[in-house]
Amino acid sequence: MTEKKRFIAVIGGSDCTPEEARLAEEVGRGLAKNGAVLICGGLGGVMEAACKGASAEGGLTVGILPGGSRQTANPYVHIPIVTNMGEARNVIVVKSAEAIIVIGGGYGTLSELGHALRNSTPVVGLNTWSLSRKEQPDNSIILARNPADAVKKALGIIND
Amino acid sequence: MTEKKRFIAVIGGSDCTPEEARLAEEVGRGLAKNGAVLICGGLGGVMEAACKGASAEGGLTVGILPGGSRQTANPYVHIPIVTNMGEARNVIVVKSAEAIIVIGGGYGTLSELGHALRNSTPVVGLNTWSLSRKEQPDNSIILARNPADAVKKALGIIND
Amino acid sequence: MTEKKRFIAVIGGSDCTPEEARLAEEVGRGLAKNGAVLICGGLGGVMEAACKGASAEGGLTVGILPGGSRQTANPYVHIPIVTNMGEARNVIVVKSAEAIIVIGGGYGTLSELGHALRNSTPVVGLNTWSLSRKEQPDNSIILARNPADAVKKALGIIND
Amino acid sequence: MTEKKRFIAVIGGSDCTPEEARLAEEVGRGLAKNGAVLICGGLGGVMEAACKGASAEGGLTVGILPGGSRQTANPYVHIPIVTNMGEARNVIVVKSAEAIIVIGGGYGTLSELGHALRNSTPVVGLNTWSLSRKEQPDNSIILARNPADAVKKALGIIND
Repeated sequence: MTEKKRFIAVIGGSDCTPEEARLAEEVGRGLAKNGAVLICGGLGGVMEAACKGASAEGGLTVGILPGGSRQTANPYVHIPIVTNMGEARNVIVVKSAEAIIVIGGGYGTLSELGHALRNSTPVVGLNTWSLSRKEQPDNSIILARNPADAVKKALGIIND
Repeated sequence: MTEKKRFIAVIGGSDCTPEEARLAEEVGRGLAKNGAVLICGGLGGVMEAACKGASAEGGLTVGILPGGSRQTANPYVHIPIVTNMGEARNVIVVKSAEAIIVIGGGYGTLSELGHALRNSTPVVGLNTWSLSRKEQPDNSIILARNPADAVKKALGIIND
Repeated sequence: MTEKKRFIAVIGGSDCTPEEARLAEEVGRGLAKNGAVLICGGLGGVMEAACKGASAEGGLTVGILPGGSRQTANPYVHIPIVTNMGEARNVIVVKSAEAIIVIGGGYGTLSELGHALRNSTPVVGLNTWSLSRKEQPDNSIILARNPADAVKKALGIIND
Repeated sequence: MTEKKRFIAVIGGSDCTPEEARLAEEVGRGLAKNGAVLICGGLGGVMEAACKGASAEGGLTVGILPGGSRQTANPYVHIPIVTNMGEARNVIVVKSAEAIIVIGGGYGTLSELGHALRNSTPVVGLNTWSLSRKEQPDNSIILARNPADAVKKALGIIND
């Protein structure tokens, strides 16, 4: 504990494309190599791929589960947090992270984006939602070119 | 209780423009005239305007509050539900409604949109977010032309 | 709304004895006769009996449900609040009430007692848990002799 | 990850006596020596003492915080989970553990006891609440003679 640990969430769908899984695994690897703890929703898809990547590099992974049993965590979750609160656990994922990397994602991910932007938690996006309101684009999501860039931007914005 | 009660949520920012407040008040009036119970987050702005409109027509209003005290409810909330769960209460607002009318709105509202679309709860929008992903617009929000149209569409979709 | 509404929770098991159901129904009737809104967990047993009694006297009932569907409410719940948060909804029941009447009850009820006493919400007990710590009895629960006495004590302590 | 990690919660008041703090620190040490991950509510008193003991032996500690900021965690929490849900987080502490050791404790702890017994999570008690209902003592809490005995009983009951 001589160095301050960083907590970064990776969010995205429990169903995802092979390309999204590849991106997520790379992000997980990058976070672990940089010593960050990975926070996620603990299930499959983007979450599992990110945990797999982080585990492969010896990183620590936390899965904040919607259901009532630790058995629902993907096999790469080291610390399962059992909320039994369904999607309300999305708020806990967001609040427990210093920055968020979002990869692809459906409506559940959109809710997490809303919670994160509402909390002024930095959000870095790979291949995700675009938002606009009243004909004006919303540029709050920091766009990343690739997984390494996403990790760098997420860690950079909180290291500053 | 001879007739089945309908539960419609009105969501939108606690800060809003005068125009959004006018729309919300009209929506509240329309819901009450049609016998629907108004569910909302219980605070100011769009929520207060909707409750004010519903109250003026003798409707019943429920405010699902983020804080720990009923004193934080706007004066037109008849049934304050005290969650002390911050924005996690957004999920409860969404789940307690059969359809949702969204008016304007910031990032908190965006999170509610995500939760609602995730739950397949019908969402009717007035002057609100536009969503797109991977260059494709998302058309899940049913657009309304005015408050009366919003009320009609919200009640129509669940009466079907 | 000329008169200030009172919000009283009735808590107790979803399984209960016929005697507990009788007590709960009488408590529900008494609360409704006194114009109080009944808050409860929305399910069967003590909750259903209390709602049935309140409904019979024209009272308003709110059921704060643990599950994800309004269909799980007992038939006497007028306002179902759908939390999908399991037992975490017990905290919302407690926080939404100005005083609590507890009838019988198992471990879920014990958790609600803990939350209520922790919040300094007055608790009136009928046929319920006795608590002691380090050989000292804990006398925080106000004992009632019968349903009418429970209603009187619950309303009295907040009307003061 | 060659060996299955165990997750044990230590619960007790954020205010505690020096004796309770001593017991909690010993329990924390014992859990860490046995390779268990310590789950707690992340604040002071019993929680801090347990985390301090676990940290001293190189154990991993998780603090499931009621507030909205990681800054509220005690200095020995390695993984702060930020719920912003107040006491509803007690349910998450209980559900995230395979067994619970309760030390002393006030009404918040009583609510956790209720949630744990409701979930059939084994509870080992040191110097804590006694429960009885309808004149019958409730013997669900497994009594421990000292910290080492508490650790042994908590790990034993889940290793079986």
